[in-house]
Amino acid sequence: MATQFPTREELRVWRDFVETGEAVRAAMGARLQKSGLSQGDYAVLLALSEATGRRLRSSELATAVGWERSRLSHHLGRMEKRELIRREECVTDNRGAEVVLTPAGAESFQAATRPHLRDIREVFVDALTPAQLAAAGEIMAALREHLARG
Amino acid sequence: MATQFPTREELRVWRDFVETGEAVRAAMGARLQKSGLSQGDYAVLLALSEATGRRLRSSELATAVGWERSRLSHHLGRMEKRELIRREECVTDNRGAEVVLTPAGAESFQAATRPHLRDIREVFVDALTPAQLAAAGEIMAALREHLARG
Repeated sequence: MATQFPTREELRVWRDFVETGEAVRAAMGARLQKSGLSQGDYAVLLALSEATGRRLRSSELATAVGWERSRLSHHLGRMEKRELIRREECVTDNRGAEVVLTPAGAESFQAATRPHLRDIREVFVDALTPAQLAAAGEIMAALREHLARG
Repeated sequence: MATQFPTREELRVWRDFVETGEAVRAAMGARLQKSGLSQGDYAVLLALSEATGRRLRSSELATAVGWERSRLSHHLGRMEKRELIRREECVTDNRGAEVVLTPAGAESFQAATRPHLRDIREVFVDALTPAQLAAAGEIMAALREHLARG
């Protein structure tokens, strides 16, 4: 079966998706930086804050933030130096290290959260109608389900 | 006026947007890597391929790929070492360097394009209904217009 290439319009939407994603992330990143955190830092701290015992296996954390393991590992190294997280090897099994939120990490996350929530409203929510917001949720779900099947 | 924080549902869509964007980019990046290019490389080569004379001011290139100048500058340094692009200082004005596509860069881009187009169809286009694809285009446009106004 011949591979069907995307149409011009499909390609346009794909490029909009990639470029708009970049632009929104850049805008949010610049705002978050005022709290001394990158978006990656915030995503990791958020996932740990919500986890039972404020700790996650690195594999669970990778899934939660949607990164590949190697990228996560590098990022965690930098966060560990800043004492935002701590890694603990598990001696009882070989399922990999656990990543633990430190008190300093919890404090940084707390301080960043109110301005970050305001930024989410200003940059993302206020840009969209309620119908567009609902459609965005459906589109993201469809993309993730397709990826999971792929 | 009090700042209104996002609702739980709005936050869920925001997080879906960020995490799905990451997951789609990671999947596309892994596929593109088979052609020896990162997604950033491909975005730069694409913008230059489409430019008149296959050259752009670095400021124009930053706008085209949606990156901040510092990130672009670091990335271009790495691409220049691999001889995919060349930077030329302009002596006639002070509007910054021009970035030029090299023959090797054009060749890498050509070789990567067919598999990349197939990946866009498989990962992105095939995941969405025509209505979802159209809605995605409108949502991205609304986000970019809002950012530009912001």
